[in-house]
Amino acid sequence: MLFDKIMVCSSNKKKIEEIYIILKALSISIITPTNELDVEEYGNTFLSNAYIKAKAYYEAYKIPTLADDSGLEIKSLDNRPGVYSSRFYQLDFGKEYLTKEELSTLSKDELNNLKVLRLLEKENNKEARFVSAVVIFFDNKGLFGEGHLEGRIANEPSGTLGFGYDPIFIPKGYDVTLANIEYKNEISHRRKALENVMNILRYMR
Amino acid sequence: MLFDKIMVCSSNKKKIEEIYIILKALSISIITPTNELDVEEYGNTFLSNAYIKAKAYYEAYKIPTLADDSGLEIKSLDNRPGVYSSRFYQLDFGKEYLTKEELSTLSKDELNNLKVLRLLEKENNKEARFVSAVVIFFDNKGLFGEGHLEGRIANEPSGTLGFGYDPIFIPKGYDVTLANIEYKNEISHRRKALENVMNILRYMR
Repeated sequence: MLFDKIMVCSSNKKKIEEIYIILKALSISIITPTNELDVEEYGNTFLSNAYIKAKAYYEAYKIPTLADDSGLEIKSLDNRPGVYSSRFYQLDFGKEYLTKEELSTLSKDELNNLKVLRLLEKENNKEARFVSAVVIFFDNKGLFGEGHLEGRIANEPSGTLGFGYDPIFIPKGYDVTLANIEYKNEISHRRKALENVMNILRYMR
Repeated sequence: MLFDKIMVCSSNKKKIEEIYIILKALSISIITPTNELDVEEYGNTFLSNAYIKAKAYYEAYKIPTLADDSGLEIKSLDNRPGVYSSRFYQLDFGKEYLTKEELSTLSKDELNNLKVLRLLEKENNKEARFVSAVVIFFDNKGLFGEGHLEGRIANEPSGTLGFGYDPIFIPKGYDVTLANIEYKNEISHRRKALENVMNILRYMR
């Protein structure tokens, strides 16, 4: 095998646990960084950002590192919010859709969702998808996997599970939002991206 | 093995030949696309652009595809020209360094080199490096390798071998430009990136 341990740079315990289960079957152990690095994710693709993060940690710790980046792409908004998913409410694009009062009282997730709902209010095409990229970087090279979850934007938020855009995203084949689906992690874009990169690992000696 | 053939999307025959030799040792055959695709390389990292290109070809041909992207990063210019290396002369940044007459008479390579030389004329730090990223993409996943060639920008162009910025780039440990070095391909960033991605392939069943 090319390596027997991987550093996972994520502060999301559920994510780390999920990766742990998959890697255990491949006899690869997981470690987490002792210190979080302040990495500027300047990439304009999910792959770039996952790569930039993984590389920064690899350079600090010299251990093969797994990082991911994910976001929402809405067809009628030219694939926005894309890599700006987590701070979409701050972007100039569509800033007239949020009031000053809302900006000072609502949470980040609420503001992002509200902005998307208002932008799509009069739009017939509500097609959207979640995208995730996972990178394992080591010594000037690496592996990557990507995953998608196709669906559409709801007319209003619903559900309390998950986070981010989950309350306004209805996966294809469902009639409820992700925030209503208990087994979300099993169908998620992140899971698919992770499985894709793991599928390469499985082929390695 | 995960695959027995790879499509190489490049119109550079020398590059294809070099890849052919490396892949032959791994019993992987090479094919080239019958039609060139018009792919917009909108990424802001070399990795992104190589990925965007490889993915577009994979989606058209459904064959594992190798693509690369390369460029020059100059330290005192905040790593410019970077992903804009091939059309640096067209950028607004530093456009006052080229005259209208030059723009209408000189070649693309000449204009790029001239602009870099003039931008660095009064700069003491001439440190620069060539960077290359190679991606093999297939079915929502892939491998990548990157390579660097450290060096500095010369005070004037010299040499007739190679192309692009070769006449103004002096590799570390040398006192002549790349355009004077016969065995350039053996020390190049492209070669290193390719070897790095091949090193992963060697680990695969």
